Amino acid sequence: MPYGYAGKIVKVNLTTENVEIKKFDENFYRKYLGGRALALYFLLKELKKDVDPFSPKNKLIFATGVATGIPLPGMNRYCVAAKSPLTNTFGESYAGGFFGPELKFAGFDALVIEGKAEKPIYLWIHDNEIEIKNATHIWGQKTKETTETICKEIGEPRARVAAIGPAGEKLVRFANILHDMKYANGRCGLGAVMGSKNLKAIAVKGGQRLKFADREKIVKLAKWAAKAIKDMPGPRSRRKYGTAVILLSLNELGLLPTRNFLDGKFEHAEEISGEKMAETILVSKKGCYGCAIMCKRVVKGKYPYETDPEYGGPEYETLAALGSLCGVNDLNAISYANMLCNAYGLDTISTGVTIAFAMECFENKILTKKDFNGLEPKFGNTNAMVKLVEMIAKREGIGDILAEGVMRASRKIGRGAEKFAMHVKGKEVPMHEPRGKKSLALAYATSPCGADHMQNAHDTLFESDVEKILPLGILKPLSATDLSPEKVRMFTYLNMWWSLFDCLGVCKFAVTPHPAAVFDVSQLRDIIKAATGWDLTVWEMLKVGERAITMARCFNVREGFTKDDDTLPERFFKPFRSNIGVDAKIPKQEFENSLKLFYGMMGWNPDTGVPTEAKLYELDVGWIANFSAR
Amino acid sequence: MPYGYAGKIVKVNLTTENVEIKKFDENFYRKYLGGRALALYFLLKELKKDVDPFSPKNKLIFATGVATGIPLPGMNRYCVAAKSPLTNTFGESYAGGFFGPELKFAGFDALVIEGKAEKPIYLWIHDNEIEIKNATHIWGQKTKETTETICKEIGEPRARVAAIGPAGEKLVRFANILHDMKYANGRCGLGAVMGSKNLKAIAVKGGQRLKFADREKIVKLAKWAAKAIKDMPGPRSRRKYGTAVILLSLNELGLLPTRNFLDGKFEHAEEISGEKMAETILVSKKGCYGCAIMCKRVVKGKYPYETDPEYGGPEYETLAALGSLCGVNDLNAISYANMLCNAYGLDTISTGVTIAFAMECFENKILTKKDFNGLEPKFGNTNAMVKLVEMIAKREGIGDILAEGVMRASRKIGRGAEKFAMHVKGKEVPMHEPRGKKSLALAYATSPCGADHMQNAHDTLFESDVEKILPLGILKPLSATDLSPEKVRMFTYLNMWWSLFDCLGVCKFAVTPHPAAVFDVSQLRDIIKAATGWDLTVWEMLKVGERAITMARCFNVREGFTKDDDTLPERFFKPFRSNIGVDAKIPKQEFENSLKLFYGMMGWNPDTGVPTEAKLYELDVGWIANFSAR
Repeated sequence: MPYGYAGKIVKVNLTTENVEIKKFDENFYRKYLGGRALALYFLLKELKKDVDPFSPKNKLIFATGVATGIPLPGMNRYCVAAKSPLTNTFGESYAGGFFGPELKFAGFDALVIEGKAEKPIYLWIHDNEIEIKNATHIWGQKTKETTETICKEIGEPRARVAAIGPAGEKLVRFANILHDMKYANGRCGLGAVMGSKNLKAIAVKGGQRLKFADREKIVKLAKWAAKAIKDMPGPRSRRKYGTAVILLSLNELGLLPTRNFLDGKFEHAEEISGEKMAETILVSKKGCYGCAIMCKRVVKGKYPYETDPEYGGPEYETLAALGSLCGVNDLNAISYANMLCNAYGLDTISTGVTIAFAMECFENKILTKKDFNGLEPKFGNTNAMVKLVEMIAKREGIGDILAEGVMRASRKIGRGAEKFAMHVKGKEVPMHEPRGKKSLALAYATSPCGADHMQNAHDTLFESDVEKILPLGILKPLSATDLSPEKVRMFTYLNMWWSLFDCLGVCKFAVTPHPAAVFDVSQLRDIIKAATGWDLTVWEMLKVGERAITMARCFNVREGFTKDDDTLPERFFKPFRSNIGVDAKIPKQEFENSLKLFYGMMGWNPDTGVPTEAKLYELDVGWIANFSAR
Repeated sequence: MPYGYAGKIVKVNLTTENVEIKKFDENFYRKYLGGRALALYFLLKELKKDVDPFSPKNKLIFATGVATGIPLPGMNRYCVAAKSPLTNTFGESYAGGFFGPELKFAGFDALVIEGKAEKPIYLWIHDNEIEIKNATHIWGQKTKETTETICKEIGEPRARVAAIGPAGEKLVRFANILHDMKYANGRCGLGAVMGSKNLKAIAVKGGQRLKFADREKIVKLAKWAAKAIKDMPGPRSRRKYGTAVILLSLNELGLLPTRNFLDGKFEHAEEISGEKMAETILVSKKGCYGCAIMCKRVVKGKYPYETDPEYGGPEYETLAALGSLCGVNDLNAISYANMLCNAYGLDTISTGVTIAFAMECFENKILTKKDFNGLEPKFGNTNAMVKLVEMIAKREGIGDILAEGVMRASRKIGRGAEKFAMHVKGKEVPMHEPRGKKSLALAYATSPCGADHMQNAHDTLFESDVEKILPLGILKPLSATDLSPEKVRMFTYLNMWWSLFDCLGVCKFAVTPHPAAVFDVSQLRDIIKAATGWDLTVWEMLKVGERAITMARCFNVREGFTKDDDTLPERFFKPFRSNIGVDAKIPKQEFENSLKLFYGMMGWNPDTGVPTEAKLYELDVGWIANFSAR
């Protein structure tokens, strides 16, 4: 067993209740590292093509990385993956918190779940054991009740419970999975996949200590990091204001998604800012395993929107999606809606974008008061926003259509609604404006799981001296609005780097090149070496990241996706409604050229976007080249 | 000016006698590093396509790298490059010794020579100055006389003189350049390019100390290396037996090129071995700048083949090319022939292969005694071998045809001689058998300058735990006779790594993965950082290597070379005459497949071998993509 890992991967078939423990050799772990690549290994090897995401045949994978569980800031993330019911592509979503480390402490690097339980169940994983437990009595409960009931039943108040809420049970296509009621594997509808398997929750508790190659070195780094975090402006401001620390500056730049991306400035931005939250409803801060940054918010919303602090508080994405994107300026209401999402198990980004879509449909009279059971969801209608969250979660009224996500909903509604549906491959666009950070256009278009803001470092990072913070031979800073071949190159390299993080299980805020980073490249290498004993060069590391991106691409190619799916909502090719600057649109031809260049740089056929055989062999995944279903 | 460099590049036009000093910014140096990539920068930018290599328009470039002149073992090499008169491709050849460091100490990182002097001249470069001096009286002299005359004239006995001999003057297509009469830029006929420009020699002397970012660190490394070399078996045995240390083990494996590659075992191998040399004619050892390994031989051959120790002694390549390949077992004669090559300025490899070719023609009665002025050059005819060296150098009799190299000579001779001409793209095959080290087949076929043994780490290195000595994600050792896609991947990565050395100016024996290496990857990074202040990751480093390979490929594509030129002499696709093992041939179909895979892995069109536009942008040389002549 390699150092740094639990050494076991468990497969659970919910149909047969068969549990299989698998062990892999050190080379396997080193090649895939974990997380994204590990999940893709199983999805490519074991999932047949064209499977319905809600079929028992779909596989739901919880995969930690080599870094998950190292007692250092930012080393706590894990991946949940499956074929996504929102996009029909490879679906993935990451969370920090405590579940991933706990899974490793319980003896498992990853969990591969297949089949469908006859009736609702939950899994109880502890110290190398897996129990399948009845959940009929919990079915229908919100995440908090679910968590509490399970902890009581198993007699383990400190177990980490990853649960779905009613939204997941009802197969809302953007239902999520939450542990401790606030750490969300938010995107791609993986909560609905869990629901489709009658799997209400997974509880884990483990007492096993991970074996590291050099624990002393980790202790040393931990001491250094504890002090460093206190001294660094990035972590400090993130602790103070959470991820929302960026909201006002984005608004300043005219890049705060507002009213379904019609505008880039929100006149009430200050009212929904991280600063305002800190002044008003913030009651506490939470961190993830091993991390002293504490960027997570804990809020207590006020009348008439009282909230339960156990559900945490809104991230930047949530503030923008349920706030500015819906034209809503009531921080209490947004926090309340955030709580509903966490209780029902809804992705806040997709929820906000779906509601903003509904609002624009309403403003354009494509949907009417009647469709909304009497609500008048204009942009800015706080009450309507909150109500719609609940209607979606419960699939009530129009909520039943909206629960399908904006792509399917707009097709069902028709009458031009499609042009208000802000999604890529069916996944709702997150709260970052590609019109002002232009390589984000490529990120959204080419992300294997639809529009996603965590696929790549954002362009604003590239405006500084990149070479100093991430020495990959990018010697010249480039403007955020640049979309030249140089930017595509930068994007390609950074894409690999961030993909690496998703294999490692590392938080993208914790390691360079993020401005709030704690660790630099050489420290990251030290950390992995201390954990595993492997002296990974940056070459080998980037190749793991690249391997994972290309594996995901192969998954999607197999599912029938083509380059034509790598596009953006038309809105991004046009300027904002209110002019905020000359460059504030994606030039279509430049975008198309960039896309082809990106394919080429990735070793994919520039005309089709399909990974070449040579690239697969070069990435040491020749077995995909020979894959019968390709 | 970046640390570690002299900071100036000088262009000398011999037609106009114009001297131009050019300065480049730090990013330029960091992107190309030096040597190979630097030379290609000028050849691609400034040389028009289809220029005759002997035309005044051809450019002859002497380029050091960032490592050249660092006072550490193995940091002393430099590149000479031009369009090659032997191959019409990009031509390059490297030497260690002292000339490269001295050039930097004199103030210049590189020397770009164009035009043609009206009458013979030499250059005298000292302390930031360039003088063009008359060489009419030296023309025709051997390298030793040339060197002595020049040193006397300039009053600088310790100047380093890179000179051509009579062979270069007579445009022997494999004439070389030698400094100190024994350090050769041997291959590709660059001495003939020098001759075509009426440039007899370049003398350099410099008193300038290089500025390093961290000289202390270099001093520390030097101390460590001095001790390490004493303790390491690799450097120790190389000091003891020179590069010839491998001769007997290659013979043992059946991979010692013998009788023009008809055989793989030479019955007299022991008589021409490094061990035998050490016992008999070895009188001293020489090293290169900063290097205590002292792998260079100094010999004193005995009657009737007395040799002058100032011409050094034979390397492995020479022992095999003029020895086993010609069936010659007389160490004194080989040393004598080696001296002739160094005196006349002939590449010993091409000379040996050309003579072996002539011998096979003679044995097959394609050439007769008459053609050889009465000589009977059967394999093993020592006297004929020695005579032919001189006839080639002087273009006497059949020597005039042989001086064109085996490709042209065989075409001129006809009558089936072509099948005995062991070359790729016109360059004679060096003394390593691709039939037993199969990725060498790819190296020979795809090397930008024809068959070359310094393009890649040889397969035998890949049989050990590569990951430990060069962590690039190659996790599984592969047999030397493997030519699977995994081997192609390994080859591709190692190709980039070795190309990097040619940009750095680093000796391939000094740095991992060579078994006689002194420094490992992390030390190489330390060295570059200490010299320049740049914290180059292995990613950035490999990309420099890859960039240079691809630039060279672009040069050749521009000159009209296609994938059809990436092939091998037919002989290698067949077993040895005397059966030495089942696997001892290159399987043609496997070879073709590997070639396509290699192209693909390099980001070149797998069907044409032409670098894609995306790859050029990815390597940050988009200017080549826009290159009008492409």
